Amino acid sequence: MRVDHDHDEAPAGTARPGSEYVDREQQVLDRIEKARKRKPKIKEERITSSHGAGGKATQTLVEALFLDRFRNPLLEKLEDGAELSVGQSRLAFTTDSFVVSPLFFPGGDIGDLAVNGTVNDLAVSGATPLYLSAGFIIEEGFPVADLTRIVESMSAAAETAGVQIVTGDTKVVQKGKADGCYVNTAGVGLRETDHQLGIDTARPGDAILVSGPIGDHGVTVMLERGELDIDSDVESDTAAVHGLVRDVLAGSTGVRAMRDATRGGVATILNEVARAAGVSVVVDEETVPVRHEVRGASELLGIDPLYVACEGRIVVVVDGAESEATLATMRAHPLGSESAIIGRIGEDPPGLVLLNTTFGGTRIVDLLVGDPLPRIC
Amino acid sequence: MRVDHDHDEAPAGTARPGSEYVDREQQVLDRIEKARKRKPKIKEERITSSHGAGGKATQTLVEALFLDRFRNPLLEKLEDGAELSVGQSRLAFTTDSFVVSPLFFPGGDIGDLAVNGTVNDLAVSGATPLYLSAGFIIEEGFPVADLTRIVESMSAAAETAGVQIVTGDTKVVQKGKADGCYVNTAGVGLRETDHQLGIDTARPGDAILVSGPIGDHGVTVMLERGELDIDSDVESDTAAVHGLVRDVLAGSTGVRAMRDATRGGVATILNEVARAAGVSVVVDEETVPVRHEVRGASELLGIDPLYVACEGRIVVVVDGAESEATLATMRAHPLGSESAIIGRIGEDPPGLVLLNTTFGGTRIVDLLVGDPLPRIC
Repeated sequence: MRVDHDHDEAPAGTARPGSEYVDREQQVLDRIEKARKRKPKIKEERITSSHGAGGKATQTLVEALFLDRFRNPLLEKLEDGAELSVGQSRLAFTTDSFVVSPLFFPGGDIGDLAVNGTVNDLAVSGATPLYLSAGFIIEEGFPVADLTRIVESMSAAAETAGVQIVTGDTKVVQKGKADGCYVNTAGVGLRETDHQLGIDTARPGDAILVSGPIGDHGVTVMLERGELDIDSDVESDTAAVHGLVRDVLAGSTGVRAMRDATRGGVATILNEVARAAGVSVVVDEETVPVRHEVRGASELLGIDPLYVACEGRIVVVVDGAESEATLATMRAHPLGSESAIIGRIGEDPPGLVLLNTTFGGTRIVDLLVGDPLPRIC
Repeated sequence: MRVDHDHDEAPAGTARPGSEYVDREQQVLDRIEKARKRKPKIKEERITSSHGAGGKATQTLVEALFLDRFRNPLLEKLEDGAELSVGQSRLAFTTDSFVVSPLFFPGGDIGDLAVNGTVNDLAVSGATPLYLSAGFIIEEGFPVADLTRIVESMSAAAETAGVQIVTGDTKVVQKGKADGCYVNTAGVGLRETDHQLGIDTARPGDAILVSGPIGDHGVTVMLERGELDIDSDVESDTAAVHGLVRDVLAGSTGVRAMRDATRGGVATILNEVARAAGVSVVVDEETVPVRHEVRGASELLGIDPLYVACEGRIVVVVDGAESEATLATMRAHPLGSESAIIGRIGEDPPGLVLLNTTFGGTRIVDLLVGDPLPRIC
């Protein structure tokens, strides 16, 4: 899934022509390039958890099945929210289902996750989030008290985000046909900005910023399941980022794209940027903010924090000339006080994400294969 | 749940003061009135299938929990689609989750059901359906071939209805945490009509029409499960009714409200009309179109076809003076060729639905208690 190349003889980001390093590196690049050029095709006969993990299998499913059958230019952009023209208005429209387990965890629950997730998808597409729908699929026997807690959490999150939940639906399935409660939200927002946002607009020289420590949400949920024997104070970062996004857009004309780093983490977003824009993305590992506990838990889980979901962090791609100003804007917002510039857009190799590691090497950070963190959102 | 009053001495729709009939009838009315005046409160500690059946328990859940916590005027209207003002545009926004079992049945599958269901909710709220979202919750191990079939069915239904599926989401849960595949759709439509539609606008003298035989969908799904030993050619009536709705609105200025009769059937809609408008609804049983097989299956199931779900039928409340013209318009449309006038709005008793039975009696048709037809949509 991820190829390590920590060689002393090959300093970060460089490669000497003719060296063994270059040969091996080139072989890897060629293999990835070849795989990516193949028409996407679902090889499996049955759906696996990987298809829901946000990585390679999800991408194949989306491209080989959903895009192929639902083919239309709005869906093909594959942004977090579709941009619609309805009557005289430019709208954004998005949806997400939430199947997180457990339903309640430090810092949040499935309710505020479902509201914030959809609010954030609208926000990063440059829209003002306005209206949400809520669809519940509930397992028979689910405690009404828990449902009440979820609904109250959704209500509070909606109020904080300034959105209204205006339509809904409830279905109940038999015991053993769900897992407590699943929640779908869809959202409508109004696009008023003149920023032409899109991950395909990233260009060499742009800077990449994140709005705070990454991986808090994913690690919190894993720890809450008791799968790791760690005591930790880490909490989910679930939050509505529309205010932060608004400040970023107001403070800079050079914003290319924003994404909230959920399933698949920051690494997945950077891969999507690299592919959509045909550029390389170079990240300096030591600049990526990661809490101590999150780093420790990730090591135990054998996963790079770059792949671990956040629920209140945005990744911003901005004109390099505006990177410091944008950083200052982000740090001035309560949800962005620990923002950092973590990398830049380059030219070569197009479509790939390279990480300059803290040990001085460089490695390719590819899309996830498999599903190391199932049902974290 | 439903009170039978088939007495020879009490002709349809009348009651002689002082008779034993009137006393009993009055007691029933008083009891219902008292129950309805109570502040809705969820008595159960755990969710039961009734909470998802569209009847009394669903109503209580919606009123005591969702309305209470999400309180806003748009949700409170409880129409099938919320009416929004976004920028310069009047929109409709709606959502539905689909958990039908089995996923494939004569006449349709969960895919076209999910598209048509949301298209129809938009249409009956007076909007032109435009854009849909699609959220999938898939059980690990689900055959990719079945998912493909569902997606192809959604694509075909969207094309027929003239809508685009523009945004989506896929989650995968472990084996035993779902039942194959659940689908949520949300939809956005544009409201351009000047008709002020709303079930609360029904008034005495209005006529009630349905667009064809009722109960086909619900009975088809029940038969497909093999729970009844009946051979039948009945098929789901799943269809997008936006064209039929458009014709009705174009042909009449006296349309008060439209609904598509899904979960809970025509009886549930009529109860909602009666309660919202504070009127009575009087239905003549012999005028209600019901296929022979549907009537037979309903008898075996011990349920009135009035409670059985359709997925391509609309109920129209229209000014009595325009009932015949509206009927002609509906019959001229391929999806309305078997339309019928089935009843009228009266004054007393407010909030109740009365059925003049084929046997000459009258009975109250109340909201469903329990869930006689689980997971039919």
